[in-house]
Amino acid sequence: MRQAGRYLPEYRTLRQGRDVLEMARSAETAAEVTLLPFRYMPLDAAILFSDIMVPVAEMGATVRIEPGVGPVVDEPIRRPSDVRRLRALDPEADVPYVLEAIRLLRKELEVPLIGFAGAPFTLASYLVEGGPSRNQEMTKAFMHSDPRRWDLLMELLGTAVLAYLLAQVAAGAQAVQLFDSWVGTLDPSDYATFVLPTTRMIFEGLAETGVPRIHFGVGTGELLPLMRDAGADVVGVDWRVPLNVAWERVGFDAAIQGNLDPAVCLAPWEAVEQRALGVLRRAAGRPGHVFNLGHGVLPGTPVATLQQLVHLVHERTEWVNDSAEEPQ
Amino acid sequence: MRQAGRYLPEYRTLRQGRDVLEMARSAETAAEVTLLPFRYMPLDAAILFSDIMVPVAEMGATVRIEPGVGPVVDEPIRRPSDVRRLRALDPEADVPYVLEAIRLLRKELEVPLIGFAGAPFTLASYLVEGGPSRNQEMTKAFMHSDPRRWDLLMELLGTAVLAYLLAQVAAGAQAVQLFDSWVGTLDPSDYATFVLPTTRMIFEGLAETGVPRIHFGVGTGELLPLMRDAGADVVGVDWRVPLNVAWERVGFDAAIQGNLDPAVCLAPWEAVEQRALGVLRRAAGRPGHVFNLGHGVLPGTPVATLQQLVHLVHERTEWVNDSAEEPQ
Repeated sequence: MRQAGRYLPEYRTLRQGRDVLEMARSAETAAEVTLLPFRYMPLDAAILFSDIMVPVAEMGATVRIEPGVGPVVDEPIRRPSDVRRLRALDPEADVPYVLEAIRLLRKELEVPLIGFAGAPFTLASYLVEGGPSRNQEMTKAFMHSDPRRWDLLMELLGTAVLAYLLAQVAAGAQAVQLFDSWVGTLDPSDYATFVLPTTRMIFEGLAETGVPRIHFGVGTGELLPLMRDAGADVVGVDWRVPLNVAWERVGFDAAIQGNLDPAVCLAPWEAVEQRALGVLRRAAGRPGHVFNLGHGVLPGTPVATLQQLVHLVHERTEWVNDSAEEPQ
Repeated sequence: MRQAGRYLPEYRTLRQGRDVLEMARSAETAAEVTLLPFRYMPLDAAILFSDIMVPVAEMGATVRIEPGVGPVVDEPIRRPSDVRRLRALDPEADVPYVLEAIRLLRKELEVPLIGFAGAPFTLASYLVEGGPSRNQEMTKAFMHSDPRRWDLLMELLGTAVLAYLLAQVAAGAQAVQLFDSWVGTLDPSDYATFVLPTTRMIFEGLAETGVPRIHFGVGTGELLPLMRDAGADVVGVDWRVPLNVAWERVGFDAAIQGNLDPAVCLAPWEAVEQRALGVLRRAAGRPGHVFNLGHGVLPGTPVATLQQLVHLVHERTEWVNDSAEEPQ
């Protein structure tokens, strides 16, 4: 449930007439949105408000976030030579507002702050497709047609993402989450060839910071063993894979985050409760379960349901956050 | 590769200014499109040209197929009482053109003809969401909020689908495929509760015909054991699950259809060949593999690639169709 406040009425008011990237570029606004959910519920951690496209926008991509659509890239990467349009990222110079938001938040927050970045494959998919895509077909055509240039793009994005996350940790982020939201569209052998090496480089580069590294994806059932090999401390799992099955694939020495279907939160509370308890039951007896939705909070989700859900999870699980109070 | 000719230039010409449903309502046009691919390649079977929304359109749903979008339902089922707007299906009276197309095709074809229908969950998702949807959230909210009314909708659609497929077999279809394209969005327990019983009813009702029953879905990795329980003779698998893994989940007594990633077909032939051979290698030594793409042919796929692919598969596999010639 550690999701910035995009589902809250205050957020919709703040957003009126503004681009998400513009909001993310104001450290004060980003900090304000990050804190919104705490007006409603006692979350165990905060996740920074920003957008996965923020760093690539500063690297030279023409990105805007279209309401109801998502990131749109007006000049997508269509020929391999288009990759040259992207500059390297210097976080202190290019995204100072993100780092400033983190510093502001650390002064306010009594719970840990999670920083994040989009993963290279997911960023590349927006850059190549020009927007959200069901099949990621141009991205796949790129990787299959010109693997060398694909590797260059992955390396460029991977280096930027690693620098970005290291800068977030230096600024005060106490955990980091890498969002590879669309990587579940790949078959395992393509994932192993075209994505895993860069992801591993990122997680290895973060190891020295000592902060927990979370690896998120959707529809990744078959990729879970490979995602474990990529080196995160916590692997996210969507609702398609029961937690006990996911653990068998990830290994019992890794923590798991998930995995309530966000669509369930649109149903009456009794249905939500039953399924949330199912998630907790499947995690029982294993250390290292981060209760979460399998993907983002859907628009239209009643805030009351989220409040009840946070209460339920706190009531039914051990309270592991030292800085917080004991549960009743 | 048994897919009607929507990816062919002749189809795009035929479609100019016409609705897909209108085309499907002409037995002559449906038969013509079904036969188009045979001008280009020696396929092992034909699949009827139609649309999964054809029967629900005749049951009272206001459906149109929007180019580049897919099925759009102008008055979606938003309240449970909206289910009442759907009538039962009488195939001979409501979809005579489909049955006539099958009769026409049987006179022309020297290979088996596959009939098909959309599965109740996928049909319901279009009826409830009003169009294609990434998360199927209103459909899930419906099933969780009002399980009894959901069961009624499933029963109504399931009864219609069974009658529709039985009528197709009676008209001459030599195999049937049930497309549950979007069911992979469900978690296994919701699938077992809300979808499986109706699907099983359909496959059981078809058993007496003796024709092979194919069950298709996308993103169904975790549902495969349940799909086997639903009773099909052949289970479709998308590219996310390697065939050898899929077989472990489905059981070695069922046939498998799949599973080349259709996006690969946009890449140069060398990449397609390598991955197609990977599919064949993973199927080696097992009887009952139907080589196919994991989902439909994508727009922009070069016809030459499909021709080479059909040739490659014929060259590398045993020729099991008695009515055809031996391979070189």
